[in-house]
Amino acid sequence: MPPRIVEIRKNVLKKNDLLARELRTRFERAGVLVVNLVSSPGAGKTSLLEGTLRALLERAEAAAVLVGDLETDNDARRLGATGAPVRQIETHGICHLDARMVADRLAGWDLGTLDYLFIENVGNLVCPAAYDLGEEVRVALLSVTEGEDKPVKYPVLFHSADLALVTKIDLAAACEFSRRAAYGNLRSVCPATRIIETSAKRADGLADWLDFLVARRAGRKGNVCV
Amino acid sequence: MPPRIVEIRKNVLKKNDLLARELRTRFERAGVLVVNLVSSPGAGKTSLLEGTLRALLERAEAAAVLVGDLETDNDARRLGATGAPVRQIETHGICHLDARMVADRLAGWDLGTLDYLFIENVGNLVCPAAYDLGEEVRVALLSVTEGEDKPVKYPVLFHSADLALVTKIDLAAACEFSRRAAYGNLRSVCPATRIIETSAKRADGLADWLDFLVARRAGRKGNVCV
Repeated sequence: MPPRIVEIRKNVLKKNDLLARELRTRFERAGVLVVNLVSSPGAGKTSLLEGTLRALLERAEAAAVLVGDLETDNDARRLGATGAPVRQIETHGICHLDARMVADRLAGWDLGTLDYLFIENVGNLVCPAAYDLGEEVRVALLSVTEGEDKPVKYPVLFHSADLALVTKIDLAAACEFSRRAAYGNLRSVCPATRIIETSAKRADGLADWLDFLVARRAGRKGNVCV
Repeated sequence: MPPRIVEIRKNVLKKNDLLARELRTRFERAGVLVVNLVSSPGAGKTSLLEGTLRALLERAEAAAVLVGDLETDNDARRLGATGAPVRQIETHGICHLDARMVADRLAGWDLGTLDYLFIENVGNLVCPAAYDLGEEVRVALLSVTEGEDKPVKYPVLFHSADLALVTKIDLAAACEFSRRAAYGNLRSVCPATRIIETSAKRADGLADWLDFLVARRAGRKGNVCV
């Protein structure tokens, strides 16, 4: 990038970090666990959230979602059908969410009434990595259909994640997915990362994922790559 | 985005367009068909190219690849194993290729010796859409594992493509892929787009894809969304 662009980008990220810090304080004070979900397009963020919201609602936990998309409200409508409160951020061509978009879209929402707030980021393995949204937990989803090398090809994102959630595990055999290769790659960019295998279709891994969320909310941090 | 960023981004894209125009003239004069492949991470660009290069080499056609990746030379090594000339562009965190990267990496290459030059873009459905690389043909890959709604969620990219190449069709049944929904969505953002279904595993669609390339090289443009 030309030096002027680099300079401006640094300023943008610095401003974002300052605002994200304010958001983080606000989330902590409200007692809401904020989880930022990042992945390739179509890795299964929305399907995972549909199951998660339904399970949390059954346990009488208050969960809500901010969903980011370039265009369409498909995901927001799917998630709203669970009964959870859902708000959409339409980015209109911007390739990631940032702290300003999140702060603006929270206006008028009483965070103190929520136990969990999920932020479904734009489907993109590059740009969302650089933008702190004030979340406490960042989850990187890796679909078995994408190939085992994605963690080493997109190391910044996978390194920044607290949890790697492997999705569509029901397709592992059909895709000849090698756990050894994939998890070796994950651990090479983030040695202590926790890995949970899931299938939205078969509800595999949902219990482990919910346990992870409950533990994180209770303040027991678990394995985190620092 | 703040107005200053928008302004600078416009200038960057304008400069890119000017350089892309020069590249396009250079490619036309050299008689090489340049094809820019864009998709989500893991949609199968490299696997498609492995089969394509082998088939073109068997026909004694001269094909080469410029492969873009944030990190690692995995794809370049896989493609180099076909025997075709391969050069890598490591973007180190940049989320797309641009015309300057392509022009720089072409240095010293005699394009007149090539029939086809494939450019494998960074895996990203957002940012590469805005950057013309001087290609004659832009191909958007859509994996059946990603879900049918990607064309409407990433309309700029799919609208800018001359061909939609549906990959991993062997997994269609396992993914409950709906052709009707997916192709309806594709046609809603690009009514005249040509669609070819492929499977790198079973070599499905390879003949149609090669026919498309040969026809485009021969100057018969076929269906193009304008």
